[in-house]
Amino acid sequence: MSDLVELGTAADAAQSAGNLMGVFAFGVSGALLAVRRRFDVVGIAALAIATATGGGVIRDLVIGRTPPRAFVDLSYAGTALLAAILIFFWHPPVRLTRTPLNIADAVGLGIFCVTGTVTAFQYGMSATSAAALGLVTAVGGGVIRDVLAGVTPSVLSDGELYAVPALLGSAVTATLLHYGQYTYWTGGLAGAGAVALRLIALYRHWHAPMARPHRRRQDDPAAR
Amino acid sequence: MSDLVELGTAADAAQSAGNLMGVFAFGVSGALLAVRRRFDVVGIAALAIATATGGGVIRDLVIGRTPPRAFVDLSYAGTALLAAILIFFWHPPVRLTRTPLNIADAVGLGIFCVTGTVTAFQYGMSATSAAALGLVTAVGGGVIRDVLAGVTPSVLSDGELYAVPALLGSAVTATLLHYGQYTYWTGGLAGAGAVALRLIALYRHWHAPMARPHRRRQDDPAAR
Amino acid sequence: MSDLVELGTAADAAQSAGNLMGVFAFGVSGALLAVRRRFDVVGIAALAIATATGGGVIRDLVIGRTPPRAFVDLSYAGTALLAAILIFFWHPPVRLTRTPLNIADAVGLGIFCVTGTVTAFQYGMSATSAAALGLVTAVGGGVIRDVLAGVTPSVLSDGELYAVPALLGSAVTATLLHYGQYTYWTGGLAGAGAVALRLIALYRHWHAPMARPHRRRQDDPAAR
Repeated sequence: MSDLVELGTAADAAQSAGNLMGVFAFGVSGALLAVRRRFDVVGIAALAIATATGGGVIRDLVIGRTPPRAFVDLSYAGTALLAAILIFFWHPPVRLTRTPLNIADAVGLGIFCVTGTVTAFQYGMSATSAAALGLVTAVGGGVIRDVLAGVTPSVLSDGELYAVPALLGSAVTATLLHYGQYTYWTGGLAGAGAVALRLIALYRHWHAPMARPHRRRQDDPAAR
Repeated sequence: MSDLVELGTAADAAQSAGNLMGVFAFGVSGALLAVRRRFDVVGIAALAIATATGGGVIRDLVIGRTPPRAFVDLSYAGTALLAAILIFFWHPPVRLTRTPLNIADAVGLGIFCVTGTVTAFQYGMSATSAAALGLVTAVGGGVIRDVLAGVTPSVLSDGELYAVPALLGSAVTATLLHYGQYTYWTGGLAGAGAVALRLIALYRHWHAPMARPHRRRQDDPAAR
Repeated sequence: MSDLVELGTAADAAQSAGNLMGVFAFGVSGALLAVRRRFDVVGIAALAIATATGGGVIRDLVIGRTPPRAFVDLSYAGTALLAAILIFFWHPPVRLTRTPLNIADAVGLGIFCVTGTVTAFQYGMSATSAAALGLVTAVGGGVIRDVLAGVTPSVLSDGELYAVPALLGSAVTATLLHYGQYTYWTGGLAGAGAVALRLIALYRHWHAPMARPHRRRQDDPAAR
């Protein structure tokens, strides 16, 4: 693509490495959910790959980059597959994995919201649209994971601050890009901020507000 | 796109206004379902936006218009977000909202089946294909809403005449386009017909037929 | 597309005929699940069409062939609709349909993994990527069917060897294409091998391994 914004080789390399870290973390989260849902080995591999690459595939379809990167560069699927194999043979109890998994997932979230926004901007989207697509990239894989596993998407329903850190990371990244201040370091800071906010929200139990329920709900046949 | 069928500025403006009305109605339906499923504020906003823009995003991906309109023109997502905010602070009991919501949803359905068909035709699809895609545009957002909310898609399962009015509206619109008779007024009539048919079906309790069940079902392990 | 690999008219015709057989088989499986889930006539038709064309639509979106073939050539949707009409009026008990449906579904799987791989390769993907997309084409319709019907995707969770035969068929096809040995006959053999492996796995009750569960699960709040 000749109309790409050139971001430099260093930033590209950092993005690639970062992407693979995020892919691995998301792959682990997909594989763990598959094990808990008692999926077979195919389901574990598929859920790991779908979780890890799903956000990026959505992003690429939206910006018209076909085939999506994850289908061309199989290192993404391969990395997720490694995560699946690891979890297949060694799936420790939740008690042991909760903390490392939360950290890995937060890192993946922070990386994907930045790289998703950058990619969208490189393909000519406005800064605002790029931020929106960065958010979708960051949370999309988890939504696909939950829909395929037959559970309600956690990002929508569990009240945790998960999308908000990704949105802030995307928004800061888009602002940097818009004003020509995006570099390896400023982009990295935006991502790190998203990771930190996600982890602080997690351990301080910050919650997204829910709509105030009605006192009388018996008139609502759809409430379940 | 230089090969677009020119439909005139008045029709375009009417389409835009109509689209936003449909977006708002669908946004309300997504937000209401999210509240009833006890989603948090992020889930309410996301479900409103996904319901309101999902059909159009599918349509745009199918015709190859990337990025999809909803990612470029953020007035769609903004309108759905307004609906989400409204419902977050004021979500009246079903008893009060049923009628206005049904009317708004029917209006959205009627508008989207016409504009979806027109857009597909403008992008070079045959009249028959354009009608099929118009139907998908009209009901797609609701299917995405239900899948994300973890309920069986109502358009497929609840026996109401929902897809049929949209299909008729799409088919009439495609016929008008094919014979060069599509104007602001004829297209509006097709949409209004779909809206009317949807509302009549709703209040007369017309139902789509279901397959006759077997008398003995105990031999069917998949029946649940 | 001028950069298509020419595969000859005979192979193309065989592919078309094969695709329609697969479409019909998958349409029947979608319609049957819809009947068992007590969907209405619209749901039965929609699930048949979505199951039968879903894998191909994903494939076409991934390779950037827009509009997807299934939206242009309505014989696919029409064939699936025929399957839906058949099942709507005559949906025999599972006892009678299990064997023919299993065979038809295996044939669809074998055909789609080959044609999906060939199409991806024709559009310039590497052999490895084409094999991956062939697998997605073969199993994608079934995943869409299960998600729309509100059941956990069977390919991921039921422990049957379903994706593995498709993967082998795709891999053999991709190898043939890579070494220029793909013909009507060798491709047909690859598909037949996938069908045979699927049926042998089914009737010999070969199962994909599952991850070994923990002895103590009470520490795992996500296990349900």
